Parts: sequence; structure tokens; C-alpha cells
Amino acid sequence: MTDSTTQSPSLALAVDLGGTKVEAALVTDQGVVLPGTRHRSPTGPGRTSDELQAAVDEVVTATLATLPADATLIGVGIGSAGPVDEVNGLVSPLNMPVWRDYPLRDRVAQHVPAGVPVTLRMDGLAITLAEHWVGAAQGSDHVMGMIVSTGVGGGLILHGRTVSGPTGNAGHIGHVECGGFDDPCACGGTGCLEAVASGPKTVAWAQRQGFTGTTGEELAAAYAAGDEVAVAAVQRSGRALGQAIAAATSLVDLEVVAIGGGFSHVSPDLFEYARQAVAERAEFPFVTKVRIVPTGLSQDGPLIGAAALVHRADVLR
Amino acid sequence: MTDSTTQSPSLALAVDLGGTKVEAALVTDQGVVLPGTRHRSPTGPGRTSDELQAAVDEVVTATLATLPADATLIGVGIGSAGPVDEVNGLVSPLNMPVWRDYPLRDRVAQHVPAGVPVTLRMDGLAITLAEHWVGAAQGSDHVMGMIVSTGVGGGLILHGRTVSGPTGNAGHIGHVECGGFDDPCACGGTGCLEAVASGPKTVAWAQRQGFTGTTGEELAAAYAAGDEVAVAAVQRSGRALGQAIAAATSLVDLEVVAIGGGFSHVSPDLFEYARQAVAERAEFPFVTKVRIVPTGLSQDGPLIGAAALVHRADVLR
Repeated sequence: MTDSTTQSPSLALAVDLGGTKVEAALVTDQGVVLPGTRHRSPTGPGRTSDELQAAVDEVVTATLATLPADATLIGVGIGSAGPVDEVNGLVSPLNMPVWRDYPLRDRVAQHVPAGVPVTLRMDGLAITLAEHWVGAAQGSDHVMGMIVSTGVGGGLILHGRTVSGPTGNAGHIGHVECGGFDDPCACGGTGCLEAVASGPKTVAWAQRQGFTGTTGEELAAAYAAGDEVAVAAVQRSGRALGQAIAAATSLVDLEVVAIGGGFSHVSPDLFEYARQAVAERAEFPFVTKVRIVPTGLSQDGPLIGAAALVHRADVLR
Repeated sequence: MTDSTTQSPSLALAVDLGGTKVEAALVTDQGVVLPGTRHRSPTGPGRTSDELQAAVDEVVTATLATLPADATLIGVGIGSAGPVDEVNGLVSPLNMPVWRDYPLRDRVAQHVPAGVPVTLRMDGLAITLAEHWVGAAQGSDHVMGMIVSTGVGGGLILHGRTVSGPTGNAGHIGHVECGGFDDPCACGGTGCLEAVASGPKTVAWAQRQGFTGTTGEELAAAYAAGDEVAVAAVQRSGRALGQAIAAATSLVDLEVVAIGGGFSHVSPDLFEYARQAVAERAEFPFVTKVRIVPTGLSQDGPLIGAAALVHRADVLR
């Protein structure tokens, strides 16, 4: 009897650069984060470029130091907040204004031996890959992954292959608009999903109707208690989610949409309101067929997704 | 010296089923409609299923009768108004209510020898293939084709391959919503592009502001003459076009959008208003980069596109 974990396991170094933290870990070819290998460091808009760089170096170095002696590092996958320049490996995260066209791929590559492939994609695409690989979207070839949190992002797998576009920025579902919504968006658009249904935007709308809380958690508690304004706020954001999903399904004929991120947990009813908005597209069975489900991977999704850029390279395009 | 047209030319039978007519023609492997092979017959909501079937049989039979003795029929391509069921070759055109899940592919296949492949796709996808092959989108791998006419439809080529989705209905850009627009759509949506910017909907909006004309041609003439309401109507529809294109580009990272169809000729300014709406997405260079251009193929596009389902089968997925 053999144990595959004792046979020079193939590991990926996964790096996830987000708006509040950067994380790294080693991930197996079964999509499991190897215990004891995960490291994180804060990021955010207040940090200098040198501090962000040091944070990335720190988590990558610490994680690489945990590489088992008998393991093989077969590649590095990096998921980053967007926009990105996939061809050149550059990142310009909206809420890290000191980084514009920052060469994150090459920076991380300096830590690993020459010849180890390093792949960078948007974090929304990485999460979608994770859900397709070992999460809620297994078995479907037409998938959108979504994160509803401080922003709203996503990624696409169509006909069984990732769609990232010529620049790597496909999947920006947060900037698909919702008819009938006038909310101005920081991108310049009107009624963009992110401007309506992100956690902070939902809370801000509720506050304008008299809600006195300040966080998504407080809004969730008020919703659970039946507070009228909180219910209206969650309904409104759920409806916008459904409208944007219907639009995306009209355009790319999706089978399943897997939604995660902190604010997606405000209430299970958020999903129900989204589904109701989709159901109204009664003329189009190909739209109403889309399934809207919670992600299957919780907090591990982004790192498993970054690792999927290595372990599931056959799905990439 | 040899003339390739004398060497058993490879021809495709192209069939285009639309809301007002069905057409058929023979198309060469260079994307040229063979003179003298084109036939058409009216369709429309007033016809019975038998009449529609007879119209299809008639144009297919008449066109096949023109097949040169030295030519080889290498396949049949059918572009149809949507929705469709691509897997089973069924069509359910919205404005031919007597045809729901009608087996158009098999009906046409009865006219050609067994073994000749017959491929059916949405007409919007066929037009996109034509523009990618010999039209305005040559050289790009990230394309949306659009038709702005009595409805608004389209198709997608991403990463150099068609995207039709699991059912064949990807490309319904007419049912992507426009933020800030309340116009109700027949599909059940709010502010869908088709509900705002189709020819009839644009004319209807102008009429509600006092325009006394009834056709797109009259609106075009009034616009050219500087009529205030006509200008506002074309601006409004151009802006909606730009918003939907910005949303689509956010989602799938397009390089070029080629727009044709009768109402796209209302004024060249329609394109300018669309471009202005896209330019407002200043935070996203990957959105503002998208080029919006007129289609290159005018009236031949649908048939060339149907033929591309045969001649460019390598681009299909």
C-alpha cells in the first residue's frame, strides 16, 4: 500500500492579493491548503508601495520556507484584485492607488527557481476556477463565480475554459448595470451592480432610509430581526444581483452562478431575491434556467483558486 | 494558369431565417455570395407553421437547383432568429409564435444528401462570424457583433472562438440592461437595451415627446434636419447602446463591437453617442479601449455568416 502524500507531492504556491490582506499558502493537486503553510499580511489603501511589496515578500518567503523536503513546487499562481494586465503580469488594484501597473508577477517570481511557471490572473477568475474545480460549480462548463463584499467582482468559465479577455479583465460583473437603478458608480457608470449591492453601498442606502447601524453585520442582525428598512435594503440589493445575473446570462448563457464574499452572508434571503428577479425573465427559458448558489469553499476559495492556475492550467486560456 | 473557380469549388448552402424573410444562397470559401443563387421568401408573425415551412423549403430548393455541376456542397449553415436550441437544432423565434421548438435543422437537412453536415446557430452569432471572417472585425479575437433593427441582437467571439453557451443563446445583448433606464421590456426586464434602442422603441419614445413620424427613416430625416426631439431620441438610444457595450466589455473584455442592422444607419452620430457613453468609464482603460464600428458587410452579412458555420467551422465551439 502506498500513500501518495509520501511520493514527492506536487504543490503549488498560491498567492492572493486583496484589498485588506495578502495571503500565501501551499496547495495540493487535490485542492487542499496544506496545514501550516498559510501566511498573511495586511494591505489596504493606507500602505506605501514599499510596505505592500514587503508584505508580499514576507508571506511568500514564509510560505516557501514550509515547503516539505520531499515535495516538488510545480508552479506559482497569483490571484489579484483588479484591474490587471495579464500579459505583462501587472496589477492596478482599485483600492491600492500606490500600485498602478505594478509588476507583481515578476516580483513573486524572484522568490522561486527559474523555470517554475508563475501565472497571474484576476482574483475573481481564480475564485471561479476554485468553485469549478472543487466547489459549488463542479460539473458545469458555463459558470460565473462572484464575490459580494466591499466590492463586487467575478470571473467566467465558458465552454469549459476560462475567459479572461485580451487584458485579463473579463469577469467585472460589478460593472454590469441594473435597469431602473440610478446609483452613480465610481467607474463612471450608472446603476452598476457594485454601486448598488456591495456591502458598504447596501448599508449606505439603508442609512439614507434611517438605518442607524454602520456595518454589514449590523444590517444582517437587523434583517434577521425583521427591521423594515433592513429588509428593504437586502431586497433591493438582491434584486440588483438578480438583474445583473439575468443580463450576464442573456449575454453568455450561464448554467450556474456561485456567489461568495462577506456580504453574501447577510441573509440566505439575498439569494432568494436574486432568484426572483431572474424568474421574471419569463420569455427566456435559457435565462431562467440559471442556478444561483452559495460558493462551496468559504475562506479557502481565493487560495485554492490561485493554486488552480497551476493545477488546472488545462482549463486556462 | 489555373482558375480556382473551375476546380470543383467548395460551396456552402447558407440559410438565414429572420423576422421578415427567409433567405438562402450558395457562398464560396472566400465569403462571397455566388451570383444567381440567392432566393428569399417572406416570413413574419402572420404566417402559419405550414406557410413558414413551405417558405423554407422553397428557398432551399431553389438555391440548391443553382449548384454548379462542378461544385461540391461541403455543408449547410443556418442562422436563425432566437431563441434556439442549438443541441437539438430547434428554433423558437420570438416574432414567429407558431414556431416553438421547431426542428429547422432537420427540415433543411432533408434537402441535402446524407453525410453533408448541417449546423444551426443564432443569427447574431452568424453575423459575428461574418464580421470576424471578412468584415469589420478581422484580426481581433475578442468581438461582439450586433444588429440594431426591429430588435437588438448579437453574438460573441472570445479568445478567437465562438461563445454560444450550453443552449446556443449567448449573445442576447438586447437583454443586457441600461442603468437609469426604466423602459419595460417584453422579456420581463427593466431598461433592456432592446426596450430602449431598437428602431421601433426609439421612434415610440420620440412620438411620446411629440415626434409625428412613424418610421426609422422619418426619424433619420428629422435628425438630419436638426429636429430637437429626433436629436434627443437618437442621443438617448446611442447612450443606451454605449452603456450596454460598456457592461458587456466589463464582463467579457471586448476589443471591437461591430454594429449593423437597419436602425444603425439612422445617423453616424448614433455611434458617436455610444462611444461617448463608453468613454465615461474613465476608471477602466480595459473598458474604454473597446472600438465601436459599423459592420463591414451590409445585407450579405447574415448569409455569409451562415456560410461561415461551414467554412469557418474551426472557429466554432
